[in-house]
Amino acid sequence: MYEKVIRDNVHGDIYFHEPIFMEIMNTPEMQRLRRVSQLAGASLAYPGATHTRFAHSIGTYHILNLFFEAQDFQKISKAEKRLTYLAGLMHDIGHGPFSHTFEKINPRNHEEYSIDIIKNPKGNISKILKKYKINPDDVAAIIDGKYPNKVLNLLVSSQLDADRLDYLMRDSYGAGVDYALLDAKWIVRHAKIMDDKIVFPLKTLNAIESYLLGRHHMYQQVYNHPSSIAFDSLFTLWFKRFLELANNNYSFKNLAIVDYFDDRIKDQPLSLKKYLQLDDPLMMSFFANGAQESDQIFSDLSKRLLNRGLFKVVKSTPHLKSKISNQLAQKGYDLRYYFDEYIPKRSTVYQNDFSGKKDETIWFDEGGQIKPLSTLSVFTNSINLVTTNNNEKNLLFPKELV
Amino acid sequence: MYEKVIRDNVHGDIYFHEPIFMEIMNTPEMQRLRRVSQLAGASLAYPGATHTRFAHSIGTYHILNLFFEAQDFQKISKAEKRLTYLAGLMHDIGHGPFSHTFEKINPRNHEEYSIDIIKNPKGNISKILKKYKINPDDVAAIIDGKYPNKVLNLLVSSQLDADRLDYLMRDSYGAGVDYALLDAKWIVRHAKIMDDKIVFPLKTLNAIESYLLGRHHMYQQVYNHPSSIAFDSLFTLWFKRFLELANNNYSFKNLAIVDYFDDRIKDQPLSLKKYLQLDDPLMMSFFANGAQESDQIFSDLSKRLLNRGLFKVVKSTPHLKSKISNQLAQKGYDLRYYFDEYIPKRSTVYQNDFSGKKDETIWFDEGGQIKPLSTLSVFTNSINLVTTNNNEKNLLFPKELV
Amino acid sequence: MYEKVIRDNVHGDIYFHEPIFMEIMNTPEMQRLRRVSQLAGASLAYPGATHTRFAHSIGTYHILNLFFEAQDFQKISKAEKRLTYLAGLMHDIGHGPFSHTFEKINPRNHEEYSIDIIKNPKGNISKILKKYKINPDDVAAIIDGKYPNKVLNLLVSSQLDADRLDYLMRDSYGAGVDYALLDAKWIVRHAKIMDDKIVFPLKTLNAIESYLLGRHHMYQQVYNHPSSIAFDSLFTLWFKRFLELANNNYSFKNLAIVDYFDDRIKDQPLSLKKYLQLDDPLMMSFFANGAQESDQIFSDLSKRLLNRGLFKVVKSTPHLKSKISNQLAQKGYDLRYYFDEYIPKRSTVYQNDFSGKKDETIWFDEGGQIKPLSTLSVFTNSINLVTTNNNEKNLLFPKELV
Amino acid sequence: MYEKVIRDNVHGDIYFHEPIFMEIMNTPEMQRLRRVSQLAGASLAYPGATHTRFAHSIGTYHILNLFFEAQDFQKISKAEKRLTYLAGLMHDIGHGPFSHTFEKINPRNHEEYSIDIIKNPKGNISKILKKYKINPDDVAAIIDGKYPNKVLNLLVSSQLDADRLDYLMRDSYGAGVDYALLDAKWIVRHAKIMDDKIVFPLKTLNAIESYLLGRHHMYQQVYNHPSSIAFDSLFTLWFKRFLELANNNYSFKNLAIVDYFDDRIKDQPLSLKKYLQLDDPLMMSFFANGAQESDQIFSDLSKRLLNRGLFKVVKSTPHLKSKISNQLAQKGYDLRYYFDEYIPKRSTVYQNDFSGKKDETIWFDEGGQIKPLSTLSVFTNSINLVTTNNNEKNLLFPKELV
Repeated sequence: MYEKVIRDNVHGDIYFHEPIFMEIMNTPEMQRLRRVSQLAGASLAYPGATHTRFAHSIGTYHILNLFFEAQDFQKISKAEKRLTYLAGLMHDIGHGPFSHTFEKINPRNHEEYSIDIIKNPKGNISKILKKYKINPDDVAAIIDGKYPNKVLNLLVSSQLDADRLDYLMRDSYGAGVDYALLDAKWIVRHAKIMDDKIVFPLKTLNAIESYLLGRHHMYQQVYNHPSSIAFDSLFTLWFKRFLELANNNYSFKNLAIVDYFDDRIKDQPLSLKKYLQLDDPLMMSFFANGAQESDQIFSDLSKRLLNRGLFKVVKSTPHLKSKISNQLAQKGYDLRYYFDEYIPKRSTVYQNDFSGKKDETIWFDEGGQIKPLSTLSVFTNSINLVTTNNNEKNLLFPKELV
Repeated sequence: MYEKVIRDNVHGDIYFHEPIFMEIMNTPEMQRLRRVSQLAGASLAYPGATHTRFAHSIGTYHILNLFFEAQDFQKISKAEKRLTYLAGLMHDIGHGPFSHTFEKINPRNHEEYSIDIIKNPKGNISKILKKYKINPDDVAAIIDGKYPNKVLNLLVSSQLDADRLDYLMRDSYGAGVDYALLDAKWIVRHAKIMDDKIVFPLKTLNAIESYLLGRHHMYQQVYNHPSSIAFDSLFTLWFKRFLELANNNYSFKNLAIVDYFDDRIKDQPLSLKKYLQLDDPLMMSFFANGAQESDQIFSDLSKRLLNRGLFKVVKSTPHLKSKISNQLAQKGYDLRYYFDEYIPKRSTVYQNDFSGKKDETIWFDEGGQIKPLSTLSVFTNSINLVTTNNNEKNLLFPKELV
Repeated sequence: MYEKVIRDNVHGDIYFHEPIFMEIMNTPEMQRLRRVSQLAGASLAYPGATHTRFAHSIGTYHILNLFFEAQDFQKISKAEKRLTYLAGLMHDIGHGPFSHTFEKINPRNHEEYSIDIIKNPKGNISKILKKYKINPDDVAAIIDGKYPNKVLNLLVSSQLDADRLDYLMRDSYGAGVDYALLDAKWIVRHAKIMDDKIVFPLKTLNAIESYLLGRHHMYQQVYNHPSSIAFDSLFTLWFKRFLELANNNYSFKNLAIVDYFDDRIKDQPLSLKKYLQLDDPLMMSFFANGAQESDQIFSDLSKRLLNRGLFKVVKSTPHLKSKISNQLAQKGYDLRYYFDEYIPKRSTVYQNDFSGKKDETIWFDEGGQIKPLSTLSVFTNSINLVTTNNNEKNLLFPKELV
Repeated sequence: MYEKVIRDNVHGDIYFHEPIFMEIMNTPEMQRLRRVSQLAGASLAYPGATHTRFAHSIGTYHILNLFFEAQDFQKISKAEKRLTYLAGLMHDIGHGPFSHTFEKINPRNHEEYSIDIIKNPKGNISKILKKYKINPDDVAAIIDGKYPNKVLNLLVSSQLDADRLDYLMRDSYGAGVDYALLDAKWIVRHAKIMDDKIVFPLKTLNAIESYLLGRHHMYQQVYNHPSSIAFDSLFTLWFKRFLELANNNYSFKNLAIVDYFDDRIKDQPLSLKKYLQLDDPLMMSFFANGAQESDQIFSDLSKRLLNRGLFKVVKSTPHLKSKISNQLAQKGYDLRYYFDEYIPKRSTVYQNDFSGKKDETIWFDEGGQIKPLSTLSVFTNSINLVTTNNNEKNLLFPKELV
């Protein structure tokens, strides 16, 4: 029997039992994810959090494997399991440099690129899939949430999917915090399928409550950490300056950057070809080169990105906003590049009211009846409150000012 | 009281009680270590092993902290403790891209650059040190093993120093293997000082034996993993081709690489200034750019470095060596760039006979008498044997050949 | 310097720096705690949860040690620290067999016995304390919450005291569940003292929320596990039968049990002398002997206690209650001993309204202002709700009935 | 599909897929193992090491489960797997109080009792087995190493069997030491069957070397810990005094002890019936009762067993032996009960020369050839040396003497 094993620091040994998975992993498209950090600026606060989208992709595959050990999921056909594994492995193949950070400067999200990459007839992925008689559209459909067997879609994207279970554990492990060292095995191993839904037995309720609070805490401690926010802000300001210069025919010493971002200069989303060439190290080299540019603002912002010259983050108040902007102006800072207002990532924690949004109810099986989490767990309501109130803005500005 | 804390995924919270340490860490020189991976090619086998020299530097500081909790070490003066902490934090500040891998293409080792960086009167480090009335030479002396209080030197570099204890634990944790999840606290907390030596009580003997076997296994499983060997080899061949092209006036599309490696083209070690600009991402950008070059060999080796196109590694025999080189030649491969012989890193495991080498005896206190490990632990002899016999060569060549 | 170390499986090495602590630990009074299980019936569900009050006592000492590393707590005098350590080590010295289970059959709680044991002028504890010029009343006062320096009382008994932090971690570790693998170090290390209160900085809020939810889950999964409830119920019924027999001059083959429980037969709380002779193994030997008695009910209940013949636990409804009691009666079961109604332990989770109860507010420092948890964390309200509603009864009866 | 799960603190969730296993576990014979501690006196040094033979039995079942996931083992028939699981669950069913300690006072080892208990036609085990059409002799044969399919015997008893892998991990976890936190999954998951042998691939060599050194260290640190040795010695001396008194018609206040040990008074091994009534708590109650006896020696030794009044352990030399025995005699100690000489448990670490003993070679598969460990690992020779030299005696005597 074919068997390959990869030792993962989060889940231990991960086994692969079909050669197609290794072939997919060995494509340049997937290997690029080794050069895309999972957490971007958060690693500037948590020095151990340097893990990549590549490791996360393998981990997602592993959680799917655990799901398929649950009784109801063993019944899924081998072909559909294979499709799900492929979707899990490749759901993040379209992430750009610094993962979500990049979505701030390019008007096309990573899921769209993921689907493009998988379907691209000239790419390596679709060639391998076709060799194994697999329709790339089927894999893409699962990522897109449109595959006919809805359970497969839910396994890859829902409130309690393989993606989230892996990234929460992995980010927790990488950061060295224990908020999300979940009992994923317990939850997943007991999942059921009822009415095309993934449904959990009551004995997993406590573990799922822990998972939800853990996710809430991960947003507060890691994903919305000031270093993470400040890096995203700085990156956005840097790119704004880059576009400004490029549009004004500034002569860059390093022309490569202009070439790579040609689409963006023309206000277009990056083409798939250009996008696939980008990764964290290339952006880092742009920062290193940018530091040598004569434009003082671009050079300074480049250095800051390279060497953790992050802006200070404080809660915004009207008074503070006007006070700081005045001080900055007085000291000669260009407010367009040295002052930012930022709303943290919504934690998208579990909500009891999904009206007007994608329904992401977590379902439970109570003696054969399917019930939503909200009827069983009082505590989740309050997290909901916390979240929806948490749209306060942050102000960002150079630390030197303080 | 001043207090800063960094959450590390290996050791937990690491506390800093003097502002000088944070100032040092915030210099571009130290921040560069965030962009230097600890394990280079090993992360191509162990996807979680993406930790950096920066995290390792903080971890080394932490192990020193544990040493200073042992009774005998509490007596060391505050000033000398500070010097030791600084040496621990900066002992790897001179590492180049991909850490040890870079030493294969530049004839100056990282310790020499570390000392240069610390002493450099124009650099940020010496400025900060002087601000706090610290002589950079003293810090450099500890790294160089020449500080008058020998115990400080031993804390930073010896068989059981803060450096090794951190990197073994960290590499083990990153790779997800348990060979070197050491009981470092137990060992370090009970260390003593006798006759200018660091001496361990008998109750640490078993933990130290575990440490030695763990280190031996880390060499076998991680440091000398085929992926690690193959990456080092590929990088060396790639650079050989680069020099060949540069010396023959090949016209590179991306001229930056020629500029950065000007010293090497002239067969000189890299100047400190150029060296300090190099890091993993810049090298990665050279691979990405190199992939676009018209020279087929350089382009192919660049792509291989970028996307894990590693050579196969097999044990060398005269027969195999001639057989494979013939096959390669027949298929038109240039043997200078597609065939390599490689002796794995010596594991430098504990030896009982240090004649003719730096004495690295591990000393024990048996009832007041100082005794070497060799008189107390029989099993270390055999590891010694294993190691000294392990100078066999590996052959490396494209997998496609097989 | 005096130093003893004990290796604990939960916290690692625990250091003792004064001989008095080892002397206290070596008394028969403290050694008895090695024979008192922490979790009684819960170990019948979680086979690894066999840890003892002795290990918990040492762990409590250890958490106090962590508190005393926080800056504000370093200022407490050496003498008061010693008193607190002693109170921590001995706060559970008065626990009877099977810990809290025993309080169901004896009308005096363990805290009262703890204080008696410490103050007892003929006991070993007070002799040792006096040898070291320590007033036993001071140690007892801390346990009783009446020591003048209120902070010491709070360290040993409050919402976030050394006792709870240890037992939640230890019970979680023993049961193999991860609900309460707390970041106790982070919480404790940053505790402050303001206005005679223990106050926590905002950066510990998330960890404290995790702690509260973790405690809630421990009640649901471990402390109120059906096996735990069923063991407590069975033990109470067994003892009821014992008293019934003893009061009716039943002739026990093993007279020891009558002698030990003479006070209870007279409806008095156990005298200190008798109480101190009791421990889990002695009770187990009573079960073993009881199994040989001719009284069928006492014999059967004894066997059940010995060999996990637990009753079934179901939620009580009026209908079910009458149905089951009828069935039992029909089959000839004596309802007094084979039918029980049981309200689970209140989880005493954090409450926002302490009116009419001991105030156990958790206080936070928000920029110098002391604020209660309820103003900072919305989610704790809902746990409060869950808890106060959770006074539902359980029915217990022989499984054979089902 | 039938499924029961037990949460174990060492291995996590352990699944059972046939009702027979739960029925076996619920017999009084198996439940008795909840009252038999795994490590006896070692828990007096490591307070967390209170785990039982019951947990170990479940853990052994779990390791067998891991073996059966390896490809070669999947081929074993369902019936033979069931037999092996049963043998794993019950291999220690015959352990007496304090496990191996009891074998010092009863001339019949636990394996013999295990086989008796399984075969006993009146016992609960054989009844259940027969209900499921299983021949108790087959289960007993595996434990006895005589089942025709030798691989089953090896799974339950050999150098790398399910029993040892579980107890090393469990004892390590309980004691809180990391010597034997083995990579058991890695080793077991890759095991093969060749020529009726269990054979390991080379990629497990390092993990197996770690296992062997870990076992060696567990003997040094835990199994032969002075507290462990002193408890065994004290127990033996106590029982010697008991026999002396019983044979001299001493009138015990508590006659039960005489009844239980009637066979031993007659110099016979304990009958199965009596043996099955014994467990740790009953022995503890004998110590508690013994403390009340008028015979001063028996009373004192009983108290010592109850409250950790252990003897001191020192290495024996002829000089020391005569010196201490003289001192003891002078002070009026009865040397027969207050002076002991003790050879620690042989660590039975791997040996390369099994001549004259049960062959316990660990076999490896090197490219299809079966080779013994000794030809592949140099370091194991030295452990062998250490072991065979380690037959030095210890002297034990009251601490008060020193």
